[in-house]
Amino acid sequence: MGVVIPLEEGKNKQASVKPLVDLTKADMDRVNQLILSKAGSDVQMIPEVANHLISSGGKRLRPMLTLAAAQMFGYEGEGHIRLATSVEFMHTATLLHDDVVDESDMRRGKSTARMIWGNQASVLVGDFLLGQAFKMMVDVGSLDALDVLASAAAVIAEGEVLQLSVAKNMETTEDDYLAVIRAKTAALFAAAAEVGPIIAATDKATRGALKSYGMNLGLAFQLVDDVLDYGGKAADLGKNVGDDFREGKITLPVILSYRRGTADERAFWKTAIEQGESTDENLARALTLIGKYNGLGDTIARAKHYGTIARDALSPLPESAHKAALMEVIDFCIERVN
Amino acid sequence: MGVVIPLEEGKNKQASVKPLVDLTKADMDRVNQLILSKAGSDVQMIPEVANHLISSGGKRLRPMLTLAAAQMFGYEGEGHIRLATSVEFMHTATLLHDDVVDESDMRRGKSTARMIWGNQASVLVGDFLLGQAFKMMVDVGSLDALDVLASAAAVIAEGEVLQLSVAKNMETTEDDYLAVIRAKTAALFAAAAEVGPIIAATDKATRGALKSYGMNLGLAFQLVDDVLDYGGKAADLGKNVGDDFREGKITLPVILSYRRGTADERAFWKTAIEQGESTDENLARALTLIGKYNGLGDTIARAKHYGTIARDALSPLPESAHKAALMEVIDFCIERVN
Repeated sequence: MGVVIPLEEGKNKQASVKPLVDLTKADMDRVNQLILSKAGSDVQMIPEVANHLISSGGKRLRPMLTLAAAQMFGYEGEGHIRLATSVEFMHTATLLHDDVVDESDMRRGKSTARMIWGNQASVLVGDFLLGQAFKMMVDVGSLDALDVLASAAAVIAEGEVLQLSVAKNMETTEDDYLAVIRAKTAALFAAAAEVGPIIAATDKATRGALKSYGMNLGLAFQLVDDVLDYGGKAADLGKNVGDDFREGKITLPVILSYRRGTADERAFWKTAIEQGESTDENLARALTLIGKYNGLGDTIARAKHYGTIARDALSPLPESAHKAALMEVIDFCIERVN
Repeated sequence: MGVVIPLEEGKNKQASVKPLVDLTKADMDRVNQLILSKAGSDVQMIPEVANHLISSGGKRLRPMLTLAAAQMFGYEGEGHIRLATSVEFMHTATLLHDDVVDESDMRRGKSTARMIWGNQASVLVGDFLLGQAFKMMVDVGSLDALDVLASAAAVIAEGEVLQLSVAKNMETTEDDYLAVIRAKTAALFAAAAEVGPIIAATDKATRGALKSYGMNLGLAFQLVDDVLDYGGKAADLGKNVGDDFREGKITLPVILSYRRGTADERAFWKTAIEQGESTDENLARALTLIGKYNGLGDTIARAKHYGTIARDALSPLPESAHKAALMEVIDFCIERVN
């Protein structure tokens, strides 16, 4: 069983997602089968596009959250399998649409679906997966779970549009940025965790605890992702260092470095991001400035802040293997930067 | 009250949508209010993009079907307003994504959203409206209605992908084409009509009748739309004659003219559609060939065939103003070509 490592204390063991993986393994096998079956269609292009992304080795953290959060309250039905699959489909649909919106060429070290099958197929297969996700949720028959996931779908899209409207605007504040990632990333983590206690018919406080856990875990996860884009291990994730920079994406390391910079440095950021002059030379200068103002370190500090909130959200719940595994995932998400 | 005009008999009065409009007017006012309110967001771009399309003067036939189909079975709740709004949002989301997929410049006589705000906003605002649609459905609380609409969402997307995979392939058969429009157009008409009797808690046979009515009305509607694209009144609809031709879209008039043509004529179609040589000269030749093989007349004949099935689906139901209005809409959809 995983050992929960306090965030700020000396530790001799790297936090791991393994306890969560082990606890959910049997159910995840069923989720993976359902993913393949529900991504199937007589229209050949649908499984091709869907499987390209589905089989590309994402961690499937979100469906694991749903499974663990149902198991930990003794849920014994079948609904969590379909809800977890729905959550992964919602995520996959978002990625397909994101790649079109961001005009991305690569994801997880592979060409994006839109580079192989075109933007059109990416938009439409995303829509198909979203439709399949809703059908599965309806099958489960919990209006409360439906409400949570349908709301998340609307909020995610709203967050993506918000991101679009702050794009390439260097005056974006940390608060603006948090509103974006709260909607586009954290809302699905929150929903994934909350539907577990919902179908297990727990009380409202427990639902709230899991929702808060998921929301803050999602914030921490996204902030660390933003650090990784400028950090050493990006290649392991199939990303190149500076992808966000080249796409003119404004993330917290950039926001902090801009706001803490001199007038001269701010002018540089405006040229690089707002006017899209994302040459290798400019990336090198960006990395220097991020280093100068501790943009990565302070973004990780923010991630730890949200990690602590996630931890405190779960704290009052009775100890269990599931609780310990979920706690360890917080540290795992943050320690990915090391 | 509208007079129902038999399809094949002498008639002295043009069929009209007015009886349906009159019967649903009070409820449609509420739907229109809800549309404005649910397309609202603090993210300014969302209402801008949504209202651009929403206010562009579509007929709102689909939500009227839902309202009429609930009213005709004495439904007295509030759910039909939200379901009708959901149906319109699903339709609007599809249009936003369609314009991106088809790279369309114009819709209903206005620039498409993607030309004004870009593909990205069109994809994401479509996603937002779809999310809002599902939230409203969940609010209504009928799992059966949710099932019907969620299934329609998946089928619509599947139909769009199917259309993509048969695109620019002149060997597309009439059956292939029917599979596309059954999924991408008729499925939403069917769902819009079926959810009425569902929330009015009618029997299964009545649900089946309204579903079949909607499905076949949708087929007739789409076939007539395809005719209009090559016909005289296209300008009234904000379309230009030959838009489908220029986009390389394969519709029934083209399929019939191709399959009935000489080897020489078939070679022409392949050049024009598969290789995208959609010059004005080629459009003129296409119109000549469609005329030669009665492509428009025979497409209308097919539309009448489905119109008859829609009529027979409703026939066993007790006479009422609503039934008469729904019957008249069949003729209205077909007579648009005159």
